[in-house]
Amino acid sequence: MNAIQQVDNINQFVEVEAGVILENLHQKVKESGFIFPLDLGAKGSCMIGGNIATNAGGLQALRYGVMRNLVLGLEVVLADGTILNNLNPVLKNNTGYDLKHLFIGSEGTLGIITRAILKLNPAPAFFSTAFIALENFENSRELLNRAKIFFGDKLTSFEILWPAFYRLLTNENSGNKKVMPDNYPLYVLTEIAGSDRAIPFQMEVFLESALNDNIVVDAVFVQQQEDRKQFWQIRENIDHILVQHNPIFNFDVSLPVSEMEQYVAKVDAELKQNFSVVYNYVFGHMGDGNLHLMINCGEGNTDAKELVEKIVYAALPSTHSSVSAEHGIGLTKKKWLPFSRSPQEIAVMKSIKNVLDPNNIMNPGKIFYCY
Amino acid sequence: MNAIQQVDNINQFVEVEAGVILENLHQKVKESGFIFPLDLGAKGSCMIGGNIATNAGGLQALRYGVMRNLVLGLEVVLADGTILNNLNPVLKNNTGYDLKHLFIGSEGTLGIITRAILKLNPAPAFFSTAFIALENFENSRELLNRAKIFFGDKLTSFEILWPAFYRLLTNENSGNKKVMPDNYPLYVLTEIAGSDRAIPFQMEVFLESALNDNIVVDAVFVQQQEDRKQFWQIRENIDHILVQHNPIFNFDVSLPVSEMEQYVAKVDAELKQNFSVVYNYVFGHMGDGNLHLMINCGEGNTDAKELVEKIVYAALPSTHSSVSAEHGIGLTKKKWLPFSRSPQEIAVMKSIKNVLDPNNIMNPGKIFYCY
Repeated sequence: MNAIQQVDNINQFVEVEAGVILENLHQKVKESGFIFPLDLGAKGSCMIGGNIATNAGGLQALRYGVMRNLVLGLEVVLADGTILNNLNPVLKNNTGYDLKHLFIGSEGTLGIITRAILKLNPAPAFFSTAFIALENFENSRELLNRAKIFFGDKLTSFEILWPAFYRLLTNENSGNKKVMPDNYPLYVLTEIAGSDRAIPFQMEVFLESALNDNIVVDAVFVQQQEDRKQFWQIRENIDHILVQHNPIFNFDVSLPVSEMEQYVAKVDAELKQNFSVVYNYVFGHMGDGNLHLMINCGEGNTDAKELVEKIVYAALPSTHSSVSAEHGIGLTKKKWLPFSRSPQEIAVMKSIKNVLDPNNIMNPGKIFYCY
Repeated sequence: MNAIQQVDNINQFVEVEAGVILENLHQKVKESGFIFPLDLGAKGSCMIGGNIATNAGGLQALRYGVMRNLVLGLEVVLADGTILNNLNPVLKNNTGYDLKHLFIGSEGTLGIITRAILKLNPAPAFFSTAFIALENFENSRELLNRAKIFFGDKLTSFEILWPAFYRLLTNENSGNKKVMPDNYPLYVLTEIAGSDRAIPFQMEVFLESALNDNIVVDAVFVQQQEDRKQFWQIRENIDHILVQHNPIFNFDVSLPVSEMEQYVAKVDAELKQNFSVVYNYVFGHMGDGNLHLMINCGEGNTDAKELVEKIVYAALPSTHSSVSAEHGIGLTKKKWLPFSRSPQEIAVMKSIKNVLDPNNIMNPGKIFYCY
């Protein structure tokens, strides 16, 4: 059996082995005129099985959803060796419990994902990517609303970048081009895509109207693959942060868009209250309610970790948030699981873990401290 | 606490009690400029809790997804009295197992859903609804593809009606108007909606091009609420079938669009081989890969049930189908669960049922024969 089966052109799906590298799948389905829309920095090395086990998010979740929304069917091997075959591509299937959702995002603790049927989308022919500067956060919220209404499902990405992030990612050593001045209060990187030749024109109209209404203070947009890549490098080349600072503490939080501005300000203020040196690089998938923070509180200051974590998580709105939007719990966030999940929820999770893997042989030690 | 909480306008969600009637929710969120897009014939009596417990589908799943895709957070009471509170509106939350998906579609057998946070969509301002006649099934497939590409996320419904269905639902006693002649080989009812004033014009352009290319043989389209309602009555007033025939055997199957034509022909042929009188009314959500069949094999012939079920299900493609797309298993389809789910899957479902409800007090007797 091939690692990647023949694309089903009519019903728009493909069956793949879990060990297929995401970028290889991208290339393969492209030959049939489709895209598999999951897209993330690690695409050259991450595998489909891992993408499913961690319910990966990435750069186009706003338009196409996270991995959970792209999986139609699954094959999973359970702890007792049972092969659970649910390789069914139908969109609607209300026959008992939808078990695949239990395995998606379970980080390998309930079973080993071996094959999957994935939903494909027609490849868009035209793109336009814009780098935008704004006066304040409220305008970015207004811009996001306008973009959703104006572009509909042509809107594939809406990423926000706080100025410290933009400055660092376009500094002399970054290898990136400064596509606009680095002294604006806020930046947005947005992309639209579709089959419509008028895509670049639509971006122009959209930006012009936002400029006229003072929602936006500066904007550049590009269509060509090479130029778009340059824009995306500024957002994606986060390794550059790791070169500049050591240690870096990484965060991946969910919260309502309406809470973001206040949240970032609060984290900033509390970090500065507690540390004399603070670098807080904030960016993320604003359209999905998902921010990333990369924080350094002094060169070599690894001891800061615990307090930084406390500050970042305690500032979240208590019931309307998540300590892990797309990166999962793994080992390093086990301590913070109770922040986003109630004792009752964790007890139910553990009881399910127990019944499917009574000897705890499936990725032991992940997600929970004890089972 | 109110049965329906204040709509969160910015983050576009609403928190509701499970006992809220779907249509009341529709009216309430409309006041805030939103729609809750789940829409089905029973909206005047069905309740949100039941919609979630059965993972309801309906007329706009093509655009907005089924109930599973509209639920952000849930509150569930378990068999032991535990309240499982996951009333969290964030879009991305990878903190352990996504338990809500276990309860959605579990037909009340794992717990009682008491509250939910539901995703809202901005209310579209403009609509266009078209009734279309086609020469053959292949053209309807081509039309669906074109509609997806041309309209993008403005395409909210794409329903197919075989001619016997259209004829009966527009006959003298139906109360419906014949919006086009009833001797065409196939009919499609499609709707687009959006914020764009040009919606009716776009429908016109789309249909004109399809007529020119001989994909479509006849088409009428309307914009006004009253006219649209008339079109939808033809699709929705299936009680009229129950008045004309007794008994009627109801089916709700999923299968790839590429298999539909052959499938319906096969079921028809086998019914005619086995019964002297056959009425087979076929219609459904083509865009979702979901067909409904309403079958009568002679007035008063209730004995036909078993053979009719066998014919309808045996004709499905074995691994790429479902015996219940959106109606669930309940009592009447328990016998057919193994047709769509493997023994291994059913065993895992039962083990989960057992761990959450060891005394089998949650909606006992549904989905499985024994636990």
